[in-house]
Amino acid sequence: EIIYSWLVKTYGVGESQLEEILKDLFTSQSNPTLATLVAGGYVNIRITAKAMNEQDAYSLMEPMLKTIKSRLGDAVFGYNDDSLESVVVSLLKEKGYRLAVAESCTGGKVSDLITKVAGASEVFMEGLVTYSNEAKIKRLKVKEETIKQFGAVSQQTAMEMAEGVRRELDTDIGISTTGIAGPGGGSKEKPVGLVYLAIASRERQMVKRAYFTGNRSSIKHSASNELLNLLRLHLIKR
Amino acid sequence: EIIYSWLVKTYGVGESQLEEILKDLFTSQSNPTLATLVAGGYVNIRITAKAMNEQDAYSLMEPMLKTIKSRLGDAVFGYNDDSLESVVVSLLKEKGYRLAVAESCTGGKVSDLITKVAGASEVFMEGLVTYSNEAKIKRLKVKEETIKQFGAVSQQTAMEMAEGVRRELDTDIGISTTGIAGPGGGSKEKPVGLVYLAIASRERQMVKRAYFTGNRSSIKHSASNELLNLLRLHLIKR
Repeated sequence: EIIYSWLVKTYGVGESQLEEILKDLFTSQSNPTLATLVAGGYVNIRITAKAMNEQDAYSLMEPMLKTIKSRLGDAVFGYNDDSLESVVVSLLKEKGYRLAVAESCTGGKVSDLITKVAGASEVFMEGLVTYSNEAKIKRLKVKEETIKQFGAVSQQTAMEMAEGVRRELDTDIGISTTGIAGPGGGSKEKPVGLVYLAIASRERQMVKRAYFTGNRSSIKHSASNELLNLLRLHLIKR
Repeated sequence: EIIYSWLVKTYGVGESQLEEILKDLFTSQSNPTLATLVAGGYVNIRITAKAMNEQDAYSLMEPMLKTIKSRLGDAVFGYNDDSLESVVVSLLKEKGYRLAVAESCTGGKVSDLITKVAGASEVFMEGLVTYSNEAKIKRLKVKEETIKQFGAVSQQTAMEMAEGVRRELDTDIGISTTGIAGPGGGSKEKPVGLVYLAIASRERQMVKRAYFTGNRSSIKHSASNELLNLLRLHLIKR
């Protein structure tokens, strides 16, 4: 008898919400069994089956996997070693898209994650860490009035950053982050943890406002994951 | 009786070499005691003293600390929560220097580490992740002939990247990385793990060739630490 495990990687559904959605599977489990594991911003579901051989284990596991996928939909982004960045790089390769990244509050973390994927150089054109307003204006052609009127941390600036980096580097897609990673710099209207994330392609633009908690480092990481997931959803949208 | 611990952070001296240098301290230890801990690319030395109060513990520990510092010299970069990036940001602030970063193989990791330090925006002007040759030429004004003659992974390209990013962004210091993070792209002359790191200020330039082992992610991290340490040494050089 062998024990065979598979990880289902999910993003965007909280652990308790996920356990609620899959409640009946958790309560009725015997073989295979289910467990949730939170790691690096993902909620992973481990399915474990016992059988006489791998193929039987797989057969036991498969219906469970199908149920999970049908209930969680696009929140399931991959399996086992997959990461949001590896999935994004695969999707970009598939579509033949080139990506440019403009980061403010994440300070290089998004580029770092993407370039951790072997072969990322095929799709990752360039990353710009434009911390200062000066750099946003000069490098990304964000309008000075936009920053004056709405602030560097705003929906409008995020959008102009994504559009600017795409246009300046002539890529298919541009993505951007701007926010307040803390510990300083927060205000009542724009608290520490507020981040705007934007995606611009030739056809579509979108921007998302999000709030993250934790220290500077974890806000940077959470915001980076959130942007990678937005890009994934953008790329799988039909 | 209380137990009081202090971490001495070192970089650039291997664990076994360090234990050799401090051999007599390790063999004769009773109170305080010594231990080495390797973490995140640093070799940390933990000094632990037992005493009736904190001040006595400190008095017991202090001569040991002095001996360690005098034997290891500049390999000691800080204490307790210090990181290479936090020390570098402090030194840049002290000197009123602004920094620009051009990254190839590290793909944003250097910028990410620096911007993890609260207040980094005072000294970190901009980071450019120039993966492609095109970006190196267009963005950093690396000469096309340099890349043709010596390759993108070369001492010459690293130096032109650091000088270029400093000049283009008009900062006091420019730093750069170019190398082969793998798993593909290696050759006999330029194997996976080969990285060139360069520093350019108005007065001085330097470039270092280094080899790192491990997977793509750990080569990126090791190369980033090495560059931060080079910059630290550059900044404390009298």
